[in-house]
Amino acid sequence: MRFVRYGEFGEEKPGVLDAAGRVRDLSGVVGDLAGTVLGALPRVDPETLPLVAGNPRLGVPVAGIGKFIGIGLNYSDHAAEAGMEEPAMPIVFMKATSSISGPNDPVYLPRGSEKSDWEVELGVVIGKTAKYVTEAEALNHVAGYCVVNDVSERAFQIERVGQWTKGKSCDTFGPIGPWLVTPDQVGDPQALAMSLDVNGKRMQTGTSSAMIFSVAQIIAHLSEMMSLQPGDVIATGTPPGVGMGMKPPVYLTEGDVMELEIEGLGRQRQQVRRDA
Amino acid sequence: MRFVRYGEFGEEKPGVLDAAGRVRDLSGVVGDLAGTVLGALPRVDPETLPLVAGNPRLGVPVAGIGKFIGIGLNYSDHAAEAGMEEPAMPIVFMKATSSISGPNDPVYLPRGSEKSDWEVELGVVIGKTAKYVTEAEALNHVAGYCVVNDVSERAFQIERVGQWTKGKSCDTFGPIGPWLVTPDQVGDPQALAMSLDVNGKRMQTGTSSAMIFSVAQIIAHLSEMMSLQPGDVIATGTPPGVGMGMKPPVYLTEGDVMELEIEGLGRQRQQVRRDA
Repeated sequence: MRFVRYGEFGEEKPGVLDAAGRVRDLSGVVGDLAGTVLGALPRVDPETLPLVAGNPRLGVPVAGIGKFIGIGLNYSDHAAEAGMEEPAMPIVFMKATSSISGPNDPVYLPRGSEKSDWEVELGVVIGKTAKYVTEAEALNHVAGYCVVNDVSERAFQIERVGQWTKGKSCDTFGPIGPWLVTPDQVGDPQALAMSLDVNGKRMQTGTSSAMIFSVAQIIAHLSEMMSLQPGDVIATGTPPGVGMGMKPPVYLTEGDVMELEIEGLGRQRQQVRRDA
Repeated sequence: MRFVRYGEFGEEKPGVLDAAGRVRDLSGVVGDLAGTVLGALPRVDPETLPLVAGNPRLGVPVAGIGKFIGIGLNYSDHAAEAGMEEPAMPIVFMKATSSISGPNDPVYLPRGSEKSDWEVELGVVIGKTAKYVTEAEALNHVAGYCVVNDVSERAFQIERVGQWTKGKSCDTFGPIGPWLVTPDQVGDPQALAMSLDVNGKRMQTGTSSAMIFSVAQIIAHLSEMMSLQPGDVIATGTPPGVGMGMKPPVYLTEGDVMELEIEGLGRQRQQVRRDA
């Protein structure tokens, strides 16, 4: 099933897509797509639910995201492109939850930004608390998958003193959605094609089969150090083709349009604006 | 004023200390100490509120913490002790919000931990949204101050591949409280004595006057990159005396007791246990 949250910012209601891809109102079934609901998503025939009129905005398909975790340098072809060795363990960083925005909301370049970059990523939404789980058990804790754009300001991330979080946490730098797709519908999460275009030009092409650490391995690893809780989102790394890797580097400017897609998980589209 | 949240884990109610240091029930005045309430904390005479019977557990004095931000290497005497240069800008990292626990709750060493360490820190609670604020304006966005123990697993933080967040985010590694103390009662946040004992032995002694970047500078710097929101907590760095800095290093073991104090902000006490 493909779950959504639709409506104006801050007033989103839960929904589900029907076979024709239309939004059906799920608010009579669950209060929101958050917390323990994510561990037992409703199995309901969408065709029996009220059709939502018009063409509503889609918000983030999960509410109450407690942790927004990123995995760095997790694609072998991206590591090769960057001339870096493959890491021996997942590189873990945090994006501020205040960076989260809807899949088609504008992305705002913060003041002083000259090196903002894109990263299409497979997002994993936790459905059930995971602590000390094995790789074999890990996927049982997944509510579903989604597209994430791990927008990154490279100067803030790398040139400013300290940890990556500075460049990963700017407001609107975490578009998530449009859909939360259940594992049964996704199939093998390690066999998904993905792409990202800027102004209609293909920049990133990849497949989750090139991930150095699989979704199951990432969850198991993280759960050795912290509990993963319902509503936590993990962005699992990006394939080749980021702006920083171009020669010369290419970065986002006002008016640019990013379009992202992952097989079976839908498309995002963001216009780039600049903070006044 | 000194605000608290009291009661069993997950069922805390808001309270305030009276002149005698007794807990008074604030739940008839505000729903919780969270969100916009933090930007306009109630000015009420505690003596007029119902006295809370017994000796209730104190929880985290702020609810709904969205971001738990840490500042690294922010004390000149600690930097000297560590033989490191003073950073040119604040070093910023994130602690998972799932690491947060009450000021006197046990701290659990995760499986495999051999290098868990203590860090007494001045905690800053944001009361009003801060974005692109100047240093001069910054403190207007503070709801109050509290004690934070930025417990850190050094092997996870430094020896495991990647960013510090791995060693900073373990469950129970973020005791906050006991009180949220309003700025008018704290006075100058850059003139607070602080200490940390392990098993009754003084390990850390410091003063916030030795901070390289002041609270105001930290808030202004962070707000250039991300919005700070009501309920966000910033742990502003630790003075000398962490276990990693001892020769040889000293780390926490099961049964140890940590006691932390910051002038005017109260005391924490945590017993160390080990995850089964």
